[in-house]
Order: sequence, then structure tokens, then C-alpha cells
Amino acid sequence: MGDRSGRLRVSNFSISLDGYGAGPDQSLEDPLGVGGEDLHTWMFATRAGRAMSGMEGGEEGLDNDVVAATFAGIGATIMGRNMFGPVRGAWPDEDWTGWWGENPPYHHPVFVLTHHPRPPVRMVGGTTFHFVTEGIEAALEQAMNAADGADVCLAGGAGTIQQYLRAGLVDELHIAIAPVLLGGGQRLFADGLGRLDGYACTDLVSSGTVVHCRITRTG
Amino acid sequence: MGDRSGRLRVSNFSISLDGYGAGPDQSLEDPLGVGGEDLHTWMFATRAGRAMSGMEGGEEGLDNDVVAATFAGIGATIMGRNMFGPVRGAWPDEDWTGWWGENPPYHHPVFVLTHHPRPPVRMVGGTTFHFVTEGIEAALEQAMNAADGADVCLAGGAGTIQQYLRAGLVDELHIAIAPVLLGGGQRLFADGLGRLDGYACTDLVSSGTVVHCRITRTG
Repeated sequence: MGDRSGRLRVSNFSISLDGYGAGPDQSLEDPLGVGGEDLHTWMFATRAGRAMSGMEGGEEGLDNDVVAATFAGIGATIMGRNMFGPVRGAWPDEDWTGWWGENPPYHHPVFVLTHHPRPPVRMVGGTTFHFVTEGIEAALEQAMNAADGADVCLAGGAGTIQQYLRAGLVDELHIAIAPVLLGGGQRLFADGLGRLDGYACTDLVSSGTVVHCRITRTG
Repeated sequence: MGDRSGRLRVSNFSISLDGYGAGPDQSLEDPLGVGGEDLHTWMFATRAGRAMSGMEGGEEGLDNDVVAATFAGIGATIMGRNMFGPVRGAWPDEDWTGWWGENPPYHHPVFVLTHHPRPPVRMVGGTTFHFVTEGIEAALEQAMNAADGADVCLAGGAGTIQQYLRAGLVDELHIAIAPVLLGGGQRLFADGLGRLDGYACTDLVSSGTVVHCRITRTG
């Protein structure tokens, strides 16, 4: 990452009180697992979160400020293939273009980690999905180049964030702890992830609705 | 629990951001596991937490208010054997009387869950350790009788709390989420504990030092 000037940031990644970033039994009907949508209720109550999805209205205040700050200064996004869609294995066709309709809420290049090559998909509104088969460092390099000095958002899911954390490539991690119990699913801080030496919690505030925790690389 | 008038409360149970109630590699030198003492730093910074251990001074404010409220209206405590001490299997002798010296910070009857009978141990300052071999419901009944209408504190560790949660016997659970990463150890919300149907998070506040989360039986 010789010319890396932006930071790699995880933002608004919501986990339950019991530590799950997605609920159990993920499926087409429940892409976030059973109960998983409850993790994000707080975000879609905010003005910035609603605007992201083309909706009007919403609450102001701390949660809104946090969400709004998320989108400031981001020039590209990285996500795992399971966040992009439910298709597994080789792409059977070009039909699947993400969960977000024809105008996804990114409006910049999005780099999808996959083992299976696929041509880029240009969407309405500035989002282009690029499929990266060369691994997490290649995706980061391509995203940093595309962001051209701005930050890169590491969107998820949990497994993808874990890979970047293990490699020490994440600069800042904002987690929202939502007041729900999912009872199972995919953990962000899974057993075996380790102590994350070189990272520290630098901010811990509650809006009453959700807890915002900021973990920053210090070492 | 026919005559049960008090509530069973978990108070000040601290977990790390990654969900551990004790660190990895518990030992005589690290009874809370490596890094586990960091979970409780916030409590021993408060006036009430320091007073509990016979120390003067300490901070006032939200954390102190929470800790002080913990001790109000408690008439008995339940704990697992591993919280009482490191001895495993049959008691070799009567030498081990807990981690807390001759005057433990309980000052009321404490019921220790164990598979191995042992006569009660009367300490200085009003604490008596009773050893219960008939299971969690028997311990709860004995503790409620001893508390005589006051509440019973379910002290820990995580495994003991899980047993009472699975049985639906906990009335209120106050968790403190500390801004540390332990990277391993014993989870409070372990995989397999389930959704805790009938419980809900009723309060979620941060002092800036630690997050206080209150989970109450609603169903």
C-alpha cells in the first residue's frame, strides 16, 4: 500500500448485546438471519440513514450525526461476497446485481471479494460493482486507488472484517451495539480472532437507543 | 419458589467488547484470566466499589450510582464454585475460604454451588459461605429464604448465570460492557444460550467509561 493516503474504516457495523452481527439461519427471506434486521432499526430511524435509502424524514441527534459522518469522505467500499448476495460458487449468470435495486446507496466504486471472476456491473447513481479474486490486499489496493485519497469503507460482513482485522489493515472500527438479543448467528468478535493488539477503544457513548463504540489502531 | 418475594438479580457483571466475562487461561495468578482484571477497573474507580473492598476515596457519578444501587436491598448471594475458588473436585481440606480474605465484601449468606458437600464457613463481617449440592433451584430457594424478602444477587461466573438464565430464573441482569478486548475466555452470552425469550433490554447508558445495560424479564 505504498501510496495509501486514505484510511480503511468500518462504520455502523451493528452487533447485538450477545455479539452477533447477523442472526441465525440466513436465507433469501432473512438475508441478515432471523432477527438480524433488528440490528439496523436504529440506523433507519435516523435522517441520514433514511436518506441513504431514498426515504425522507427521520430523527436528528447523536445517532444521526454518527451515520452522517459515516458517508463523509468515503470514496470506495469493500464488501464480502455474502454481503453482495446469496449466490454461492461460480456465477451462473449476470442476473444478480446486489440487494439494493438499480440505484444502490453507495454512489462510488464497490469492490466485492469473491473467488469467481465476473465483469464489473455499472449501476444507476454512480455505484459500480467490481469483483476482486486476488484477495483482501488486492481489493484494498484497488479500492484505495479508486478512492483517490478519500477513505475506504469496509462494509462487511463479519467474516470479511475479521480477515482485514487479522491482517492489521483496519484503521478504525465503529461498532453500534444494539439492545437486542439474537441468540445465535455470526459473531464479529469470534473466538480465535485474538486480542487485536494495537487497537484500543477510543470512544464509548450511548444515544439511549444504541451504543457507539469506536476502536482505533493505536500501535 | 412458592414464597419467593425477592428478585434474583445479576449486578455489575462486566464483559469485554468482544463478549468475555473472564479472560483466557485462568489460573491462581490470573483468577479472572489474562486481562480479566481490566473488566473491573471501572468498578474499583468508584466510591462504592472501593468501599466494598475497604478502600477510601473514589469517583462519584453514574458508575458509582450503579454500583451503590447494587448493594441496596440484597440479602443473600449465589455463586458458582469456580468463582469461590480454584479448588476442583472433592474439598481436600477446609483451608480455602474464598478469594476475599477473612472479611469478604458480602456481609450476608453466600450460597456456593458445588457437587461436593462441605460444612458452612463463617467469616468475619457477617458473610457465611454455604455449600449447596442439590442444584440451582435448591440454592435459589435457600438464598431466598435467607434473604427474607430482600433480593438475591447472582454473582457469577458466566457459567452459573447461564444456568439460571436457561431456567428462566433471573429477574434482572445488569451488564457492564467495558472498553477492552480480551481476545478469548469465557463468554456470558455463549453460543447455544439462545434468544432469551421473555427478556428485553430496558436500559442502555454509557458513563463514557463503561456501558450499563439492563436486561429485564418481561414475559
